[in-house]
Amino acid sequence: MHPMCEHFVHGRIVMNASTLPVRPAAHTLFLGALQAAQAVRNHGVEACLHGMVDTLHCDFLRWHDFAKCARLASHSSDGVIELMPVSDGTTYAFKYVNGHPYNHHHALPTVMAFGVLADVATGLPDFLCELTLTTALRTAATSALAARALARPDSKVMALIGNGAQGEFQALAFHHILGVEEVRLFDTDPAATRKLIHNLQHTTLKLIAYSSVADCVRGADIVTTATASKTKASILTPELIKPGMHINGVGGDCPNKTELHPDVLHACRVFVEFEPQTRIEGDLQHMPQDFAVTELWQVLHNPVLGRTSDADITLFDSVGFALEDFSAMRYMRQLAHQQGLGSWIPLVPALTNPKDLFSLIRPAEPNLAQGA
Amino acid sequence: MHPMCEHFVHGRIVMNASTLPVRPAAHTLFLGALQAAQAVRNHGVEACLHGMVDTLHCDFLRWHDFAKCARLASHSSDGVIELMPVSDGTTYAFKYVNGHPYNHHHALPTVMAFGVLADVATGLPDFLCELTLTTALRTAATSALAARALARPDSKVMALIGNGAQGEFQALAFHHILGVEEVRLFDTDPAATRKLIHNLQHTTLKLIAYSSVADCVRGADIVTTATASKTKASILTPELIKPGMHINGVGGDCPNKTELHPDVLHACRVFVEFEPQTRIEGDLQHMPQDFAVTELWQVLHNPVLGRTSDADITLFDSVGFALEDFSAMRYMRQLAHQQGLGSWIPLVPALTNPKDLFSLIRPAEPNLAQGA
Repeated sequence: MHPMCEHFVHGRIVMNASTLPVRPAAHTLFLGALQAAQAVRNHGVEACLHGMVDTLHCDFLRWHDFAKCARLASHSSDGVIELMPVSDGTTYAFKYVNGHPYNHHHALPTVMAFGVLADVATGLPDFLCELTLTTALRTAATSALAARALARPDSKVMALIGNGAQGEFQALAFHHILGVEEVRLFDTDPAATRKLIHNLQHTTLKLIAYSSVADCVRGADIVTTATASKTKASILTPELIKPGMHINGVGGDCPNKTELHPDVLHACRVFVEFEPQTRIEGDLQHMPQDFAVTELWQVLHNPVLGRTSDADITLFDSVGFALEDFSAMRYMRQLAHQQGLGSWIPLVPALTNPKDLFSLIRPAEPNLAQGA
Repeated sequence: MHPMCEHFVHGRIVMNASTLPVRPAAHTLFLGALQAAQAVRNHGVEACLHGMVDTLHCDFLRWHDFAKCARLASHSSDGVIELMPVSDGTTYAFKYVNGHPYNHHHALPTVMAFGVLADVATGLPDFLCELTLTTALRTAATSALAARALARPDSKVMALIGNGAQGEFQALAFHHILGVEEVRLFDTDPAATRKLIHNLQHTTLKLIAYSSVADCVRGADIVTTATASKTKASILTPELIKPGMHINGVGGDCPNKTELHPDVLHACRVFVEFEPQTRIEGDLQHMPQDFAVTELWQVLHNPVLGRTSDADITLFDSVGFALEDFSAMRYMRQLAHQQGLGSWIPLVPALTNPKDLFSLIRPAEPNLAQGA
């Protein structure tokens, strides 16, 4: 076992005692959006990012423990709704997540999500968790985990193209995990950039707004693209890419939703989460089926499969994989238990006799009080 | 439009005004197991079964409105966990459901479930519903809907093989929807049969326990099999089957979990919910790929595709299809609104600026109160 993972036993996080009330029979712990935010604020964003990176790292190292499949997508003219299941044989996880690029017209986030951890041995749902905030944290943590393995170790400057909901999380993850000191910002919507600068004014990050992608990217060690447009875009073109760069492609995560010119991929060594899914959803969808890629877990096991020189251009073509939500939910469950946050809900019934489901609706017997 | 469906407009149930408090922004209505049971008791089981049969009927009549797929199953040595999504382009539904035949060792039901209705236009989860009780009601309602179209109209006697969690629901659905007056009971566990008789003592149903399947089935108009054993069983064999019978096969719903001898299927005209799924999961898995079946929606549209004479033996090889959960959740949502049951939960965050997800965890600004 990797020394970092010693606090995981058989894939379970070794926890301090829960400070929650005792679980009523067959109840599910529910951590909603407000309480998840409270848990993260209490623990601190930096500590949460470190904890989530560690959890992701340990779970990626046991890649072959997981039964994996591509996510199940339901597309409509307005967006997509997806289910993302995964299991390690002990814990089953799934996430519900949507992607609706015009949701701001309805005062709703582009991406909303929730998910469940369940016990494989019984099917009992153990934990119901908001995953809108949590997905933003896990996506940024996964980006940082990949960049820690792939970017030049002396990387200090990141260009961040797309300053929407995911922006602050990417900036903080690269700041705290990789030591990035300067983040150069570009968004087609200047209000998004202003929002990001306002939100991170309490940090020591140097934040600079640029009015063109080319100016923003020039001189950056790392380029992160996190745009929401549901189009085949070419935000990064080959002339912007320089030897030694690490590109963290986050926003191209759906068929016909890409961010990189195909020639950028040709210039890069390309790393992915789960190859069958990325071939469909990532910027990799531009490439022929035999275009070589390396899965992230392989690099974590064997660093020589990653960057080979300061001149390599590395690309993490991230689309988001169910394993990351598995890790993120386990981490949030740990936070909830440690802090006594969340509530027990009867998502499934507790039955005195498990074969007697009808007892839930049996009319009260004569001479017994109503509502039995 | 079918006259029965006039209270559905564009697939939506026309509701009386909700008696729930006004929905807080981006909140989801949660109906847990206890409140779902309360809603059913308040409305009455008979009325709920009738309402659910009507809802199912109207949704099956608009079969081509739905984007359908087989469910996504995760098998383990102890059981299975499945995700069942479906969408009509306006409403997206999915169910989480397990099947663990040895769960009674853990004092848990064999089948537990919950599900969500979401808005296709935005992806917002609208309704989170327990589906353990609700699945039992919808499965029985679907059985009755099929039998109403397929069984001899003068059917009065049903044999019920398997008297577990689903038993009472099947007995009541056939009593209230078809006018069955006598239910003959068999279970390998006599305690299950006693439980069923106790639970239905308040009804006018004639309930008789039998000690063998052959005695139980002899003379029945309808035979319902609802057993939980995860094996290739042959509970019904050809010599038990008589002309004019309708067989309602509920328990064979998983690869290697069947209830009928293959020759029973050869003797029957076979009806299914969604053919691609039933070929994998139903008793139909015994049959060659070209064995002819008819989908239920076709019979509901065109009754001549159903029973053609009093001598036909009809089989509804039911496995449970996502469309039925879509219908059942819409019905339960209506009950919740009408009765003011359920609670609004923040499954996803409400954001003043939907691009400002980070606002959930931004540290409080100087001179502002904590907890901003």
